[in-house]
Amino acid sequence: MDIVNEIIEKLGKASKIAVVGHIMPDGDCISSVLSLSIGLEKLGKFAMPMIDYNVPWFYREFEGTEKIKDFEGGKKFLEESELLVILDSSSPDRIGRVKEYMERKFTIVMDHHATNSKFGDLNWVDSNYSSVAEMVFILNRMMNVNYDPLLATLNLMGMATDTGFFKYSNVSADLFRKVADLIELGADLNFIARTILENKKVEQLRLFSHVLNQMKFRANNRLVYSIVRFEDFERYSCTEEDSSGFVNELRSIRGVEVAILFVEYPKGRIHASMRSKSYYDLTKVASEFNGGGHPRAAGATFDDENMEQVVKKVVGRIERDLTN
Amino acid sequence: MDIVNEIIEKLGKASKIAVVGHIMPDGDCISSVLSLSIGLEKLGKFAMPMIDYNVPWFYREFEGTEKIKDFEGGKKFLEESELLVILDSSSPDRIGRVKEYMERKFTIVMDHHATNSKFGDLNWVDSNYSSVAEMVFILNRMMNVNYDPLLATLNLMGMATDTGFFKYSNVSADLFRKVADLIELGADLNFIARTILENKKVEQLRLFSHVLNQMKFRANNRLVYSIVRFEDFERYSCTEEDSSGFVNELRSIRGVEVAILFVEYPKGRIHASMRSKSYYDLTKVASEFNGGGHPRAAGATFDDENMEQVVKKVVGRIERDLTN
Repeated sequence: MDIVNEIIEKLGKASKIAVVGHIMPDGDCISSVLSLSIGLEKLGKFAMPMIDYNVPWFYREFEGTEKIKDFEGGKKFLEESELLVILDSSSPDRIGRVKEYMERKFTIVMDHHATNSKFGDLNWVDSNYSSVAEMVFILNRMMNVNYDPLLATLNLMGMATDTGFFKYSNVSADLFRKVADLIELGADLNFIARTILENKKVEQLRLFSHVLNQMKFRANNRLVYSIVRFEDFERYSCTEEDSSGFVNELRSIRGVEVAILFVEYPKGRIHASMRSKSYYDLTKVASEFNGGGHPRAAGATFDDENMEQVVKKVVGRIERDLTN
Repeated sequence: MDIVNEIIEKLGKASKIAVVGHIMPDGDCISSVLSLSIGLEKLGKFAMPMIDYNVPWFYREFEGTEKIKDFEGGKKFLEESELLVILDSSSPDRIGRVKEYMERKFTIVMDHHATNSKFGDLNWVDSNYSSVAEMVFILNRMMNVNYDPLLATLNLMGMATDTGFFKYSNVSADLFRKVADLIELGADLNFIARTILENKKVEQLRLFSHVLNQMKFRANNRLVYSIVRFEDFERYSCTEEDSSGFVNELRSIRGVEVAILFVEYPKGRIHASMRSKSYYDLTKVASEFNGGGHPRAAGATFDDENMEQVVKKVVGRIERDLTN
């Protein structure tokens, strides 16, 4: 843990620290950014959680998320900060406009994506961790941060979301001991589950019903994909974030190894969310399409291409692997 | 833990032990029955896991389930057994035809249903446990049962399923420490999740799509219900077990406190599966309709009544509570 000690030393010497997450933030990003910021504040630092993107509305139900600044709101602090800590981001383009500040500021990167390009001045990158929230918990405890129920809940939220609520292959005995510790510190796991998983809009379920009706199977039913076009989002009064869990549902079909959801949002921009069940490594395919992620969960974005082209390219590429 | 020591003493003196689960077995039932039987076998006993009902096909993918006897297959062992251990069953009618043997055999009941009638000669009933599998793990460890990866996986399976994969309000720090221990002993949680949650038939998803299209809301959208008739099961080539997770999906809608799925299977027999999200206690309603369960998950069965009557009765009863 030499790198962790180096990070702690660097944080110890700074006073104003910007803690930055990635665009299209997920639970782990929001959890990590807040848990580290709150931890640093408890140690007497000025810390600012910042994400250059909209935080999905249901995460706003977690007390503390109101502290997260957008780019405009955090610009002044960024200017004055001595350190950037960038979390859960595999490359500089994942942090939006904060990227511009990297050259002028000492940058610490903490991440668990195997595809991380180690673009910081200090890089703690370890794909053995289920979530960056797990790494933040280690760091906070090594810095003797005092946990209250709110911080415990926020920190646990990222561990829960990035493991699919403890179902994915990235869980470990150590992770469950951390979960036990956080629950003892007052973390409310049922609140996390209710807020994130049991907060679906009816419109969202109707859109899901549409996705189920559009399913297509390839490679002897080992590959399933479905499509949500921009017009579908409009028809069902939904936005991109409403479709975030659907690809996991597609993967849940018996015999399926790879599931892909193609989402057009906003108009003209297509994102392919990919999931695999037990053996297919998605990182390679994601990289080929300039995307990134984990072996079992990855994604890639396509601009200025039409849906048919993108589907053909991505489905064709994976189908070839699965049938060989 | 006086009662646990009493149970251990009783088990210690017996040689042939029947370990019995309930009809319509779920993950906790199957897990508990197998984990205790295997544990007792490892201690040199003759133990027989028995369930007077069909074990759902996807549970059959767990090695060890082939040991579970049905009523005919286990009858001879039952006759000769000195002890019945009845697991996860709140009343004698839950164990099917094994009930007939209770009068002649010393009976131990282990359960976590608050509604348990304590019908055994020794009763370890404690609704603080998330699952009976958790209680079996305690018992096995107190008896110094040696865990291998297979037993660890089977034992963890019940803890996972009865907590909705660690999402419900019945989880505790202690439970997560047990999970950590079992993972260290070789339990494969990802296999459990893949086998139970990611093994859906396409037909099942199409039936789910149908259920979504039949949703009805009451009590200011705090109550949602849907219906699957016997004809629907036939149309989508599904059986009752295919609909088992649907009611949780209905509960996952924003603002919903109670979700009910009415299922007619087989023809003429209607089962109401009820779930609540954060405060509504379902045990009372379930008892009124001669059913049982937990505060957040309960059920009741209706014979010789038509769907409209049952829906009106159950929905009306809960709607009254929610609007007062």
